[in-house]
Amino acid sequence: MTDTDTRRRARGGGGAARRAERTAVRIECAKYIERNIPVFEVLNEEALEIIETNAETLLWEVGVNFPSNPKALDRWREAGAEVDGERVRIPRGLARELCKTAPSSYTQHARNPERNVEIGGKGLVLAPVYGPPFVRDAEGGRRYATMEDFRNFVKLGYMSKWLHHSGGTVCEPTDVPVNKRHLDMLHAHMTLSDKPFMGSVTEPSRAADSVEMCEILFGKEFVQNNAVMTSLININSPMTFDDVMMGALEVYAEAGQGCIISPFIVGGAMAPVSVAGTLTQVLAEVLAGIAYSQLIRKGAPVIFGTFVTSIDMNSGAPTFGTPEASMILYGAGQLARRLNLPFRSGGGLCGSKLPDAQAAYESANTLNAALMGGVNFMLHACGWLEGGLVSSYEKFVMDADQLGILHRLAEGVKYDENAQAMAAIREVGPGGHYLGCEHTQANFKEAFWRTNLLDYKPFETWYEEGARDTQALASLKVKKMLEDYQQPALDPALAEALAAYVANKKASMPDAFT
Amino acid sequence: MTDTDTRRRARGGGGAARRAERTAVRIECAKYIERNIPVFEVLNEEALEIIETNAETLLWEVGVNFPSNPKALDRWREAGAEVDGERVRIPRGLARELCKTAPSSYTQHARNPERNVEIGGKGLVLAPVYGPPFVRDAEGGRRYATMEDFRNFVKLGYMSKWLHHSGGTVCEPTDVPVNKRHLDMLHAHMTLSDKPFMGSVTEPSRAADSVEMCEILFGKEFVQNNAVMTSLININSPMTFDDVMMGALEVYAEAGQGCIISPFIVGGAMAPVSVAGTLTQVLAEVLAGIAYSQLIRKGAPVIFGTFVTSIDMNSGAPTFGTPEASMILYGAGQLARRLNLPFRSGGGLCGSKLPDAQAAYESANTLNAALMGGVNFMLHACGWLEGGLVSSYEKFVMDADQLGILHRLAEGVKYDENAQAMAAIREVGPGGHYLGCEHTQANFKEAFWRTNLLDYKPFETWYEEGARDTQALASLKVKKMLEDYQQPALDPALAEALAAYVANKKASMPDAFT
Repeated sequence: MTDTDTRRRARGGGGAARRAERTAVRIECAKYIERNIPVFEVLNEEALEIIETNAETLLWEVGVNFPSNPKALDRWREAGAEVDGERVRIPRGLARELCKTAPSSYTQHARNPERNVEIGGKGLVLAPVYGPPFVRDAEGGRRYATMEDFRNFVKLGYMSKWLHHSGGTVCEPTDVPVNKRHLDMLHAHMTLSDKPFMGSVTEPSRAADSVEMCEILFGKEFVQNNAVMTSLININSPMTFDDVMMGALEVYAEAGQGCIISPFIVGGAMAPVSVAGTLTQVLAEVLAGIAYSQLIRKGAPVIFGTFVTSIDMNSGAPTFGTPEASMILYGAGQLARRLNLPFRSGGGLCGSKLPDAQAAYESANTLNAALMGGVNFMLHACGWLEGGLVSSYEKFVMDADQLGILHRLAEGVKYDENAQAMAAIREVGPGGHYLGCEHTQANFKEAFWRTNLLDYKPFETWYEEGARDTQALASLKVKKMLEDYQQPALDPALAEALAAYVANKKASMPDAFT
Repeated sequence: MTDTDTRRRARGGGGAARRAERTAVRIECAKYIERNIPVFEVLNEEALEIIETNAETLLWEVGVNFPSNPKALDRWREAGAEVDGERVRIPRGLARELCKTAPSSYTQHARNPERNVEIGGKGLVLAPVYGPPFVRDAEGGRRYATMEDFRNFVKLGYMSKWLHHSGGTVCEPTDVPVNKRHLDMLHAHMTLSDKPFMGSVTEPSRAADSVEMCEILFGKEFVQNNAVMTSLININSPMTFDDVMMGALEVYAEAGQGCIISPFIVGGAMAPVSVAGTLTQVLAEVLAGIAYSQLIRKGAPVIFGTFVTSIDMNSGAPTFGTPEASMILYGAGQLARRLNLPFRSGGGLCGSKLPDAQAAYESANTLNAALMGGVNFMLHACGWLEGGLVSSYEKFVMDADQLGILHRLAEGVKYDENAQAMAAIREVGPGGHYLGCEHTQANFKEAFWRTNLLDYKPFETWYEEGARDTQALASLKVKKMLEDYQQPALDPALAEALAAYVANKKASMPDAFT
């Protein structure tokens, strides 16, 4: 059976599935971005070489820690590293050499093949906010997230045209026991959306459950031969690879599933206060992490991750949309491309408590830097608020609207005869007006990106309609999207098998809330 | 007498001025930005050559209009253009040749020489919003602007650290007769601020008044030999150079004063709906305008201006922060640099009615593009709201705070030994913490850009303090800045002479309100 056969079998199912597909509303979803513009690079060759040399120096002279993970230490020892307790010292060049078996890009499959994404190269894949324990909306304010919130955010992601990926922990469903959450979360991504998604990383066993659920959804053979998840493996900076995260990485890499290997850095706390110093540490950490993924399984798909915020030295708060964070993003992108690896960074990051102007300035600064800096996978592209403590309903749709701008910018400038528009300029001439001319009539529908949320109305109309600000418009949009939501078709037999798996797994465990 | 002597005489004055200077509060003002990062370029060589060739074709085959301006037509005829009625057809290469006498950069002098700005090259000079007939603040809402508002905005500009320029019509003081406004406006810039400013362009006679007032402030000889104003000459796109604007340009160019020659384009209305077509028209217009400035006086300092917005084809409203506007900015920057001319574009442009998230997304998109695209002079850098109909008090300080980010980004990445921070990474080691380390202690004060407005507080503190959004914080900041404002010292004799000039001029004219 070929991959395609497996996929068809897994998704198409019998007549019931075909009927369900016919009656379902088709939701518009843009293809992932393929860049046709240059990348913005801040580091010159000399700076890059210094950072690369220094990172190798750190890996050998300082080394990295792999605590409570004897198997990892064995792997490193066999590969030629010097292991002393939990410290692993990696000889100059070894980590970089090991990274060479990682693919420069990979396809992450979705259950709807039209939603497959290519991660790496000139691609940019957009995924929503990940991790917040709280949610906020205009009516209910800030509160602990529940599974209902989680399902709502998956639905919003499914309905968002410019979002290519359903993400992972779109919020932390605190009303479900910790040891069972991942089952409900994956089930929501698999059944409420048909976009690609992320697996659980909070325990190796939960990663294994994620793989098993994918085997039900996609078919076992298909999962063996294809990446159907991209999961987030954070490095415990500085230079520490904790056993829980490494355990999840081991499961996913062995299963050939995609992982982001990502330092998580609040600059000045988990890395030096300088951009160049932080980049050096980021590179050393990612080299060690990706090398380790290749020790588990050569060719395992991985992403060079960089999550770095600056810090407010007055309050100790992480800060977002700052120039230092942008510089690190640009520099890390250069380092990732020199390793020929997909790059993850950016997002609609902000520190604001509300989806207000601060949130938008900070988020736009980061979104623009991520596009310019050549990010391939952007987590937190929409919905992130308050330094990642909060998933915001309104900000989700506000950011998601802005993501359309990135799509258009990435296309670059056309200069064919139609784009040159010489006939139009000749036709209109000095003092004329273009609105009625033939070229305008032929092109205006596609000429300009248009918001699907923001206010472009005349002042008087806007005033009469209640003088609403962006949050108010977004609040209405959230309600409308959730009302209009229709579940994508899924073979009832698969749906039943997934539900049964979740029920059985849950029944086999006591509830745990910590 | 040397320039320096003249300047000293003009500004320092006698003992009274020296005493005034000693008692005045020193207001912090950053130096104009000097870029140490690359520019972002979207057009390849082929596209650039096509656009340049097409622009020359337009200038010759279609031509440009100089209505009601026989002297301009004579100048063009003498220079070798073909003149037919008010239409001027410029032979291929002529305009570009004439542009060669324009300087690639020039110094605009301020009455405080520390505030002088260099316009062109790697410099970026930031100036506030220009032109709105309305103002808005949180308390008073939207209303017609008055002279009191005008003075307030000049004061805010003077107090804004990241703003290098006092601007021009920071709002339109509608309570002063049209034919006398320019006198009060210039008087406010000259006396309430010591940053460089712009002259009047609404009548050639008002441009002449502007020059005369500068001759009082700076000394006649100094003004003859130095640029002390940069004024905004809009082209009436498509391809029309109206006699009022050209009259002002003639006054300024003859006096050796700086001018921005700027197409004013709502894309799809005053230019084709395509980016390449718009760039072609922009280039043709700027070539003709700058060539004309050099026909008036070779070496007259001028700026390649580009003000282009996209349009919402549903409502006809101009739209801001859109991908097409950014593309045009990037492309125009490339065209300006190939002409070796200073470049004006960008700003904190937005269409929103309120200083909310929409305003911030759109403004941040434009501010980032302007830095990346190599803008040398940025008008509307702060305070712009509602498509330029409104000067917003709150948005003025919100944008002005963001301008600090541009300063830091433009510095690029340091990679000296201190920046490499290898000792710090070695000292902290795997699993450690950087907050207390020596490198952090030595560098943290300068390590990260810090807002002077936005909220970085812990959630609980923020909540207890009233859960204020950005507009509320900005509103407090506006009040504080206006309370703290102290007028910069000015020689009382000069102050008196300026006041007398304004009074006499006003007395010589009847009031005109249209």
